[in-house]
Order: sequence, then C-alpha cells, then structure tokens
Amino acid sequence: MEEREKDRGIMGPEQGDPGKGREQPASMSTPNSVMAKEEKGMEEREMKKEMELEMELKAEVKVELCPTVPGLQMSFIRGTDLFGYVGIEAVLDQMRRKTIKAGLEFNIMVVGQSGLGKSTLVNTLFKSKVSRKSCTPNYEEKISKTVKLHSVSHVIEEKGVKMKLTVIDTPGFGDQINNDNCWEPIVKHVNEQYEKYLREELHINRKRRIPDSRVHCCIYFLPATGHRLRPIDVEFMKRLGKIVSIVPVIAKADTLTIEERQEFKEQIRQDLAANGIRVYPQKEYDEDPEERILNDRIRESIPFAVVGTDKEHQVNGNKVLGRKTKWGIIEVENVAHCEFANLRDLLIRSHLQDLKDVTHDIHYETYRVRRLNESNMNYSELGLSTCGLFGNEKLSYIT
Amino acid sequence: MEEREKDRGIMGPEQGDPGKGREQPASMSTPNSVMAKEEKGMEEREMKKEMELEMELKAEVKVELCPTVPGLQMSFIRGTDLFGYVGIEAVLDQMRRKTIKAGLEFNIMVVGQSGLGKSTLVNTLFKSKVSRKSCTPNYEEKISKTVKLHSVSHVIEEKGVKMKLTVIDTPGFGDQINNDNCWEPIVKHVNEQYEKYLREELHINRKRRIPDSRVHCCIYFLPATGHRLRPIDVEFMKRLGKIVSIVPVIAKADTLTIEERQEFKEQIRQDLAANGIRVYPQKEYDEDPEERILNDRIRESIPFAVVGTDKEHQVNGNKVLGRKTKWGIIEVENVAHCEFANLRDLLIRSHLQDLKDVTHDIHYETYRVRRLNESNMNYSELGLSTCGLFGNEKLSYIT
Repeated sequence: MEEREKDRGIMGPEQGDPGKGREQPASMSTPNSVMAKEEKGMEEREMKKEMELEMELKAEVKVELCPTVPGLQMSFIRGTDLFGYVGIEAVLDQMRRKTIKAGLEFNIMVVGQSGLGKSTLVNTLFKSKVSRKSCTPNYEEKISKTVKLHSVSHVIEEKGVKMKLTVIDTPGFGDQINNDNCWEPIVKHVNEQYEKYLREELHINRKRRIPDSRVHCCIYFLPATGHRLRPIDVEFMKRLGKIVSIVPVIAKADTLTIEERQEFKEQIRQDLAANGIRVYPQKEYDEDPEERILNDRIRESIPFAVVGTDKEHQVNGNKVLGRKTKWGIIEVENVAHCEFANLRDLLIRSHLQDLKDVTHDIHYETYRVRRLNESNMNYSELGLSTCGLFGNEKLSYIT
Repeated sequence: MEEREKDRGIMGPEQGDPGKGREQPASMSTPNSVMAKEEKGMEEREMKKEMELEMELKAEVKVELCPTVPGLQMSFIRGTDLFGYVGIEAVLDQMRRKTIKAGLEFNIMVVGQSGLGKSTLVNTLFKSKVSRKSCTPNYEEKISKTVKLHSVSHVIEEKGVKMKLTVIDTPGFGDQINNDNCWEPIVKHVNEQYEKYLREELHINRKRRIPDSRVHCCIYFLPATGHRLRPIDVEFMKRLGKIVSIVPVIAKADTLTIEERQEFKEQIRQDLAANGIRVYPQKEYDEDPEERILNDRIRESIPFAVVGTDKEHQVNGNKVLGRKTKWGIIEVENVAHCEFANLRDLLIRSHLQDLKDVTHDIHYETYRVRRLNESNMNYSELGLSTCGLFGNEKLSYIT
C-alpha cells in the first residue's frame, strides 16, 4: 500500500532516503527535523499519522496516472525534502485576510423561562447590549401569551474582525400555565432557517455567499433548582438536540453552594444521559483524538453554572464584572466564582467556528438529506418538482 | 439609512457617541482608534467602508425585529464600545487550526508545446519533483500523437501545512503537424472535474468534504519568440479563459534581451486585449479597491518571463537556483534576472487561495448555472431528471 517515491530530493539522489533526509541540518524545514534521534517514538507516531493521511488521500483521488509507473500513486514530500522554501503556509494568511474582509456571521439562540437572566448573560458574553433588553427596556414586564421569536442583529468589531451577531430570543417559553408544545415555534424557526439555506443553495443563480441565518448554537437555561431536569427541559432538549447544537447552562448559579452546584451538575449529566439527550459538543463529531481529549473535559463539566452581570466593581483596584451582595462580590469572569468564563471560552474563544461547522456539516446536512428524500416523494406541496434528481438509485453510477 | 444605536456602551450612556468613543484612549480597541485626529481622511474612508458593510449586511438580513423599535435594524459595535475583551478574533486561530488539520488541495495544469520546460518550471515552483519527469525519465523523448492528460499528485508538507498538489500535464499539445482542436481534450477535462464536483454536491448523501479535482490554475507556456501570439495561443486561451484561470508565462525567457522581453510582453498584452482573452487575475473579480490596486500591478506585468531550473550554483558563497552559461549564471529566483519569483508569489504566496476561490465562485458556478439550465431542457441524456427543480420560475417566490 505504502509506496514512496525513492528519488525524492531533486538536487541529488542521495537525499532520497526519508530517514537520512530528516537528519540533515534543515534550513527551511519543519521544526521536528532535527529531533529525529531523540524522539524516535514521537517520530514514529507522526510517520504513522502521515501514512494514514496519505492513504486517506489516496483513497480519495482518482487521477489518470503515468502509465509507466503503475505503483506510484502519490508520494509524500516533507519540508526537509524540498530543495528550498516554497511558501505553502502563506495560504493561512491569505485565508485570514479573506475572513477578515468578508466578516463572520454567528447566530445564537437563548431559550429558558423569563427571569433567568438570558439577556444579561448574552450581553455579558459579548460585552455589549446585544440582546433585546437593549431595545425594549420594559420588555420583561409583559409576559407574552405564546412563545414568540425575536431576532436582533449587531455587527461587533474587535481587533479588526467583524462579526454579525444575531441573538434570537424566545420570550414566553415555559411561562404559561400550560406549556404543551411550547418548543414547536422554536423547532419551526430552526428548520425554517435550514430550509432557507437549502433553497438558496439549490437556486440556479445563487449568491456568492449564502446569507446564514441558521442557529449555530442554542443556549438552554436551567433554573438553579438543585433538583432534577424538569419534564419541560427533557422534552425541549430531546427534540432540539437533534436539530441544533444545544449548550445547557445553569442560570443564576449564585444561589447554589459549592456542594449543591456539584451535585446538581452531576444530576443533570445523569438525566441528560438517561434521556438520550444530545448536547454540544457531541462525542460522535469529535474529529480526532486530540479533539476528543479537549471535548471530554468540556463534557465532564457541563452544564456550566453561570452568573451574568452588566455592572463593574472595584476589586483590589481592578475593575471586574460582578454582582455585589452584602456578603461579597461575585466576580463573573473569575473561574473560582462561577463558570461563566468556561461558557464564554466554549462559545467564542475555542469552539465558535466548530459550532458553525457542526451546524453546516451535521445539522444542516441531516435536514437536507431528510428534506430531499421527502421532496422526492411529495414534492408538489413545496412548489418544487424534483422527480428523482436526488434519487440515489439514479445517481449511483457516479460514485 | 444609517441608524446607529445611541446608547451603545453598556457601562454608561456617555460612551454612546461614535466620534467620542473613537477619541477615548482605547484599551481593547482597534489599532486606529487613537489616530482619529491625525488621519481624518483615512478615518472617513474607513467609516464609509464600515457603513457600506453595515448597509450590505442590512440588505442581507431578514430578521424578525423588536416591534417596539422599528428603526433599529442593526447597530455597529466597535472594540472601543465594548466593556471588555470578547475574543472574537480567536475565530481566526480556530480556522487556522482547522485548515492545518484538514490540509489543502491545489490542482495546477500546465499547457504548452514540448520542450518549453513545463515540468522543470513546476518542479522549480514546488522545490521538488512534482511533475511527470520524475516518474517517467524518458518521457520527453517520445512525443505522443494526440493530446493526453496526465495527473500526478503529491502531498507536500511545509511548516506543518499539508497540501495535496496535483499537476496535470498535457503532453502532445501543439506538437502535431495539424493541431486542429488540440484544446478539446483539455476543455473536456476541465469541465469533467466541474461535473464531478456538481454531482457530488447534488448527491443526497454527500461527503463532508467534496474531493476537489477542479483545475485551480492553468499555466500556459508561450515560446519566447519575441513575435506576436500565434493562432494556437489565441484559440486556446480564448476558449480556456472562459472556464479556468489562465496564467500565461513566457517560457525559457533567458533567450530574450531586456528590451526584447519588454517589447514581447507589451505585444502579448495588446494581443490578449485585442482578442478579448481573459487571463487571471481578471478585473471583474477584484473584490475591493485594495485588491484592484494589487492586481493592477500584476496585470501590468503579465505574462511573466520565466526561467526554470533544478540545479543549484554558488553565487557569492550562497547557493542559488540557477542556469550556468559561459556568460554568467541566471539566478532563477532573482527578480533582477527573471520573473520566476513573481510567478511563484502569484501562484503560491499571495493568490493560491484566491485561485481556489475564483475557481469555486466563478468558474464552477458558471458551469453549474449552464449545466442546470441545460439539464432542465435535456436532462434525459444525463440519466438525471430535474423536471424544473432548479427552474427560476418555480423558485422565484423564495427570493
């Protein structure tokens, strides 16, 4: 399987042997080229990884090959094997510039009964008035009779990176006497955004960048009861977890003692597992062992027990975001006080792009498959006719 | 049109005025926040740009807004207006890591009659034996009777970035007595890759990452005749320029004197314009004035007059890639000697991602539109049936 090109160095056939090439002093080489002797084990692991990649890539390619060398499908050329600097990694800067130019879109939904501090938390996350409180000061006062969805968009610019942030609020959720089916308008909204995207994607003359209104993340607020998940929590997350990335949080966690918090979190994790509820980040979508280790740590500590605020206080001469009580100041961003910082890191600093990717690659794709299979059967109701364009049987000869 | 939220700072309404906010000493701000007074003009341009972005974004969004504040659609929040560091720009690192993990694909095609140094040039570009010479040492000797396409793929790793490079060679092009329609196999190959991608994209159960065999760049080799474009050059580039990004180069440019080179280049530019030949980077696809200025400089100096080599020589104690003659050494990467470095910078260090983007956003999209319109009419020959799924008339109510 693993055929490497022997005569790899272009400046002389002596460089051909990969082991030898690695031990030569490297001018423009990868950082690990001189460590070959010391870290034999590591190198082997790396080699294995490279071989895996190679084989993976081999599996992907169908090229018309030089007929004279049938075995040579693809060889692997390392930095040390190159006879000078090429500049491949410049592509990372090219992408960076393009991303900065184009800007980002991020859509976050907050769900939970009123009074749990949803707006305050989102404002604390993005250090500005991005949630609906900002535009409707007395909004909280009137509780709507049904679940309504409200979206507010802001463009936030920080260090030259522009992000169009859309916060989708769900006032009325869980606030009724009878909350039967209160998740339905939310499920509908999430699916409508997939539908919108799908239609844009299928359009003949489609936009260069399809506007992305899909919900990248749904923060679900659990009241800090210290008890178990309530039926409404289970029913909501069971349904929504299948179509969107849910991040459950314990709201207003300042009412819990350290022990209560730990117990409550453990209880919730058990309830989530027992009910087969899928929350973000899902184990199935970890792409490699490195990601698995990182995400396992997150999975072990969800749901984050958070406290939000929009007030600053002086602590030891520093301004900190916090909530002042008669018995002390809860520093919202202090990991010793609450888990707000963990939530912020997950949503913004470490997993924002992954939330977008999971939305696109998993949730949207799942919707698309279901939708196209459906429309195959029953397309007339859509005003669309597909007549089996997407039918696997018709396209099977392509793969 | 330009409604900004007045009460922008969350910590106090005094920060609301954008002008004021900009002049405040910025802790977490954008780099230009303190330059407001000195560079009024620049700031204005920038403000205008931001407003344009804002309006552009406004045009894109259809959100259900807070009904109580009908005017407030989207406000712009700058770093200086935030009451602390959010960490939005961390997304750039997240993307970087993801790109490194996933690796890149880049497919380059070389076209030109035999003996113009196509393989050597590609090997010089990627500092390794990536072209067919490497696997068929005596290939050059036998000239094929028809134009054949040969693809060779290598994975090149440099500084941790892995790129699967595929070089598509076109032996036999222009080598016949009668070269009628010698571009046809090439046109066919380019279109077949679009077709493959399109079918993958339309598949119900499609791959997470569609394998990309589309030709991202076609280097067309002009012999250094010093005369005008030949009919075969015109016919080839006229056709291919419509479906792929063509970068014409003057091959083996060491036969031209400085004056000859300048004259020849000027002549070719005139001929390209006179024949309506579209070469990369095309003016129509410049995305902003900054890109236009950069690309204008490239457009003014194409076609690059290049010399390739796989030999190193000592010049003033340094090893340089060059061609040694009795009258001196041509240093291939020395911009004073030839324009190889300009070509390398364009293809790899500054425009590689753009070549991929133009391929995806323009050439592939053009193919897709044409193909779907066609298949609407005459789908049976494809084994596909679309029955107007993509028909604009049927989907028009969506937009």
